[in-house]
Amino acid sequence: MNMTKLPENQWLTEIHPGQGSAFSLQITDKLLEEQTPYQKLAVYHSTHFGNVLTLDGLMQVTTLDNFLYHEMMSHPALFVHEHPQRVVIIGGGDCGTLKEVLKHKSVKHATQVEIDERVTQVSLQYFPELATSNHDPRAELKFDDGIKWMDEADDNSVDVIIIDSSDPIGPGEGLFNAKFYRSCHRVLRDGGILVQQSESPLLHQPLIKSICDAMDEAGFSVVQPICFPQPCYPSGWWSCTLARKGKDLKHFREHDVEKRDFDTRYYTADIHRGAFALPPFLAEFLRT
Amino acid sequence: MNMTKLPENQWLTEIHPGQGSAFSLQITDKLLEEQTPYQKLAVYHSTHFGNVLTLDGLMQVTTLDNFLYHEMMSHPALFVHEHPQRVVIIGGGDCGTLKEVLKHKSVKHATQVEIDERVTQVSLQYFPELATSNHDPRAELKFDDGIKWMDEADDNSVDVIIIDSSDPIGPGEGLFNAKFYRSCHRVLRDGGILVQQSESPLLHQPLIKSICDAMDEAGFSVVQPICFPQPCYPSGWWSCTLARKGKDLKHFREHDVEKRDFDTRYYTADIHRGAFALPPFLAEFLRT
Repeated sequence: MNMTKLPENQWLTEIHPGQGSAFSLQITDKLLEEQTPYQKLAVYHSTHFGNVLTLDGLMQVTTLDNFLYHEMMSHPALFVHEHPQRVVIIGGGDCGTLKEVLKHKSVKHATQVEIDERVTQVSLQYFPELATSNHDPRAELKFDDGIKWMDEADDNSVDVIIIDSSDPIGPGEGLFNAKFYRSCHRVLRDGGILVQQSESPLLHQPLIKSICDAMDEAGFSVVQPICFPQPCYPSGWWSCTLARKGKDLKHFREHDVEKRDFDTRYYTADIHRGAFALPPFLAEFLRT
Repeated sequence: MNMTKLPENQWLTEIHPGQGSAFSLQITDKLLEEQTPYQKLAVYHSTHFGNVLTLDGLMQVTTLDNFLYHEMMSHPALFVHEHPQRVVIIGGGDCGTLKEVLKHKSVKHATQVEIDERVTQVSLQYFPELATSNHDPRAELKFDDGIKWMDEADDNSVDVIIIDSSDPIGPGEGLFNAKFYRSCHRVLRDGGILVQQSESPLLHQPLIKSICDAMDEAGFSVVQPICFPQPCYPSGWWSCTLARKGKDLKHFREHDVEKRDFDTRYYTADIHRGAFALPPFLAEFLRT
């Protein structure tokens, strides 16, 4: 067949074999490649997307488009919560979610629990713009197993838990099930919110459903996927799923969003409402 | 460098050289390839996205995800308009936009003006689900140059014009400028709405700005890009830009959306509001 072939050695390609698609970025340099105790870590420089960090060959962060993901993993939950003071991020080694979380003045303490310290060290070097809040006195960077950390955490001690993990294969696998969500539920205060990155609304509907079911099973009162663009992830369309302990997710502090004293590049009150609008095809799948 | 290479001859790859990215679909068969008088037309069968139609090597339609684009090219404009009766589609040879338009009972006549009859003939064969309204007595399929058709159309005769074109290179090029938009403005009735597919909010901001500027120049009262996911197009995040003659785009018939007597898989009133929420990074670029 007469196909367009990508020129060799100038493209970084991520194949999504289960979904029959692939995404490629044109690159100029491989900046780093190493095997950490947990995964294969690499950083490339691309022609148009800036730097690109991959774990086990899968794109995690690019300079160009990470703001979409990091803003949507943090602000929707933090503006639904009436007064988020204590936030825990599981994973999130690039520190981009931590940076967004610490934009909220109500937050008194934010702990990032990343299993692989090399991810953070390498991100500091290649994505320094994401690490500008790492020395905030409210920030705590721990390098530990998130499951163990959660098991040992006090009951009713956290307002928002953000599971900013890689895919449900490899080191992230144990974060996608009712056992872990039950542990999160115990650690959350009443009204607390759990956020889990939950892959593509178009390509990973069974996974989204299994996450929703596991959160239900773990005792959360309401569960809601929200959708947003994320070009460097499979299909370019992504989701995270929010679950709340003892309250609903319907309302958010709209007035506080409007008068916030920090910049966002994607998130606004209108974007918040739009992200919570579940497309009928996905709502229907989740009902089955 | 140690890159993952795509296995040869099993992938259809679309390179976006100006944006340093590429998207690939795993395919099982090439179903058709021909040179029409206007462009190179091909159809493939893919493992996960169903059939895929390409024009000059660029993906136009896949079975899996075309509903996103077709619904967003039609319903937002048709529900903003108070009583759309006469609709014209420029391009749209796959008939998917026509099908969505004709779901609206208020529409008395919808004309599709596609320059390349082969696109429609081939779509009938490989995307028959998009052509189910082609024999609606309100449908008119013309195979003609959209610019010429618009030049010859009566003043104040159309309520909604949808420019469902390929990229602003090749046959679609003349559809992206103030001269053509001025012609559309003349043909639209007062309160009429123009819709132009306007590429990726992340990758094609200068193009979106040039479309907005050209629509302003053509005399439209308000201009507004709206965003939606479209995985098979560059970045997986797409837009169309709406412009209105003599009225604004702020309100839409929300009640009619809620009580509509037809199915949509993506479009809802909440999705409508979300799509009109311009992300700050894009709003800022358009202000420059």
